[in-house]
Amino acid sequence: MAKIAILGYGTVGSGVAHVLDENVPEVTGSAGEAVSVKSILDLREFPGDPHEAQVTHEFREILEDPEITVVCETMGGVKPAYDFTKQLLEAGKSVCTSNKELVAKHGPELAQIARDHRVSYLFEASVGGGIPILRTLAGALASERIDLIEGILNGTTNYILTKMEEDGSSFDAVLKQAQELGYAERDPAADIEGHDACRKIAILGSLATGAHVNAEAVPTEGITKITADDLKMAGQLGMTVKLLGSVKIGAEGLEILVAPFLVPLSHPLASVRGVFNAIAVHGNMLGTSMYYGQGAGKDATASAVVADVCEIVRNAGRTVPVSLQEREVKLIPTGEAVRRFFVSMDHAGEAGFQGLFQDGQAVSSGDAAGILTAPMKESTLVDKVAGFGDRIHWMRVAEA
Amino acid sequence: MAKIAILGYGTVGSGVAHVLDENVPEVTGSAGEAVSVKSILDLREFPGDPHEAQVTHEFREILEDPEITVVCETMGGVKPAYDFTKQLLEAGKSVCTSNKELVAKHGPELAQIARDHRVSYLFEASVGGGIPILRTLAGALASERIDLIEGILNGTTNYILTKMEEDGSSFDAVLKQAQELGYAERDPAADIEGHDACRKIAILGSLATGAHVNAEAVPTEGITKITADDLKMAGQLGMTVKLLGSVKIGAEGLEILVAPFLVPLSHPLASVRGVFNAIAVHGNMLGTSMYYGQGAGKDATASAVVADVCEIVRNAGRTVPVSLQEREVKLIPTGEAVRRFFVSMDHAGEAGFQGLFQDGQAVSSGDAAGILTAPMKESTLVDKVAGFGDRIHWMRVAEA
Repeated sequence: MAKIAILGYGTVGSGVAHVLDENVPEVTGSAGEAVSVKSILDLREFPGDPHEAQVTHEFREILEDPEITVVCETMGGVKPAYDFTKQLLEAGKSVCTSNKELVAKHGPELAQIARDHRVSYLFEASVGGGIPILRTLAGALASERIDLIEGILNGTTNYILTKMEEDGSSFDAVLKQAQELGYAERDPAADIEGHDACRKIAILGSLATGAHVNAEAVPTEGITKITADDLKMAGQLGMTVKLLGSVKIGAEGLEILVAPFLVPLSHPLASVRGVFNAIAVHGNMLGTSMYYGQGAGKDATASAVVADVCEIVRNAGRTVPVSLQEREVKLIPTGEAVRRFFVSMDHAGEAGFQGLFQDGQAVSSGDAAGILTAPMKESTLVDKVAGFGDRIHWMRVAEA
Repeated sequence: MAKIAILGYGTVGSGVAHVLDENVPEVTGSAGEAVSVKSILDLREFPGDPHEAQVTHEFREILEDPEITVVCETMGGVKPAYDFTKQLLEAGKSVCTSNKELVAKHGPELAQIARDHRVSYLFEASVGGGIPILRTLAGALASERIDLIEGILNGTTNYILTKMEEDGSSFDAVLKQAQELGYAERDPAADIEGHDACRKIAILGSLATGAHVNAEAVPTEGITKITADDLKMAGQLGMTVKLLGSVKIGAEGLEILVAPFLVPLSHPLASVRGVFNAIAVHGNMLGTSMYYGQGAGKDATASAVVADVCEIVRNAGRTVPVSLQEREVKLIPTGEAVRRFFVSMDHAGEAGFQGLFQDGQAVSSGDAAGILTAPMKESTLVDKVAGFGDRIHWMRVAEA
């Protein structure tokens, strides 16, 4: 019987307890022994909850309990999760987490502390609860040379873009509707500005390279400037618009960013709609494979945490390998990348716009006009459109 | 340094050597030590091949070589692969294979022999080379209660159906074209009659239940009766046609079959086109996740074999767990299942056809007519259409 603790009894933490309660035979089979929750750290009380008696307000109780071998950190945020995790690993307890902020910031250091103490630090739930991508990179794809990872890493923004396309509505109208339906937070900045996707692509980039990609160094754009006309013009070009996290791994370094892309309909990510997430990985032998699932949701995220718990219990006494190292990796400035772009203007009439890209493909929708350019360096594009200021906006185009 | 042998130096076997030669740092990192090919069993000679010197015609040489710890069985077929595998496992060598025929027939027995001798029998490449699904079921999804697996498990048939839809061509015309392009075999029966997909869904059903699903007991239909009009009528209904392997796991037993289905466009498998394969899995906590990749291809299949080799080397001295047992599982007759059906007739005029399903939705294309029925028991449908003999054909409809 393995005994675990849960730090933070919110949505994910209570989901972990729920999965362990519901799927007893599956968890026992997977872990190789029964797994039970001994302690739950939370400042609140939970009268009437089936795990009421296990709630404690004292972190020390868990830290100093020799029976507890695995701790699920489902608190979120960097403080105090970082200090708690460090102390637990140093005390010889394995930790698994859904905390993408902490993993993106301190993952390599925490993974090293885990290795030093022959315990494990796992974080499948931090990238996309419903998509077992970290385990896939570490296992099935470990003998591949990965050169490209592209993902739809945020369900809220994918829902908004899908609805804008289906209904022809504006960003603001769909965001408001999504907030009413509970698909978007009241303060939606972390989603719509791309910060959530940024942390996830930083973690994926780190794992794929075995080095540390600092999330704060990843160029990040959100979807707030996308218009219904952009989506209509993309459709005319046989494309759709998706917020992608993208990391291209080359000999010179990493091209990594989060931004809205025009995605050709033949691309496997183009058909991922609504709140679903998906990650496409290209390896030198395997070619393209894609992993698709419900990005978030209480039970999906909790299930990923529990899968980590089972793997740790099954591998008791040794560190489950995680390819996360403290050395930094070289990032290539986005201006260097060569690709096609989609440039659009709300009022097509302005002199000079249509002449900007002679060899481009022109489209229009309502008052708006757009041009799909030939491949060029991003810095060249930026120079060309500089004189138009905010009256022009542009997006990158993903390769089919 | 781990030393391995390869049985059969054909497409997949030579691919394994190629992946090991190309991805040395990745393989070494994944396995935890270098991996090299010591012996290759094949009856032919390979003058000029980089591995020419390692080719042997004597199985005993490999069986009795104490340095060889892992053997890749890439021969295909049941004989002599079954005898070779059994002897190798009994001699304390681990085996990984791409041989779906052997795994579907004798997998549970061979997995048990492996456990008895503290070695491993792995077969990721047997279900879909480019899709790491077996490892995902055994790892990330091991703490889930899986209730449904549906997959596009054969690239040739998916290519044919995609082309028929795109071009409005007949099955025969597209098959001929696929044969010319090398996407279909000269003798295409294993693909177009569904036998290949049948072996794969039997393996998936076995792994998801931990029991043995005998491939020969799985009801299997191919795609030879599908017409261009069927695809057009499916389109009118907001659906497409896919050859699915499907296994539904309930308290009463398994509903498992391979057959062409009408698939609603909102279903994640609907957008999988051309030679790609994909497998959708529904778990009680995780919801639906989907795994997508190039189903076959020399390097993709070989990469999956190499991933198995690395996992075995990394876990030297213990059996990598595989949920495959010898007990048989109960199959529910297909007649019991309740779902919607699509019934079609090449010549719509025949008396009585339109009146067969009063509450159905009628469509037509050219001379052909079709009806999407309300949900009913399959045995009820079969009774209703019995009088029409071969003049009617019908397909099942997948749930969105």
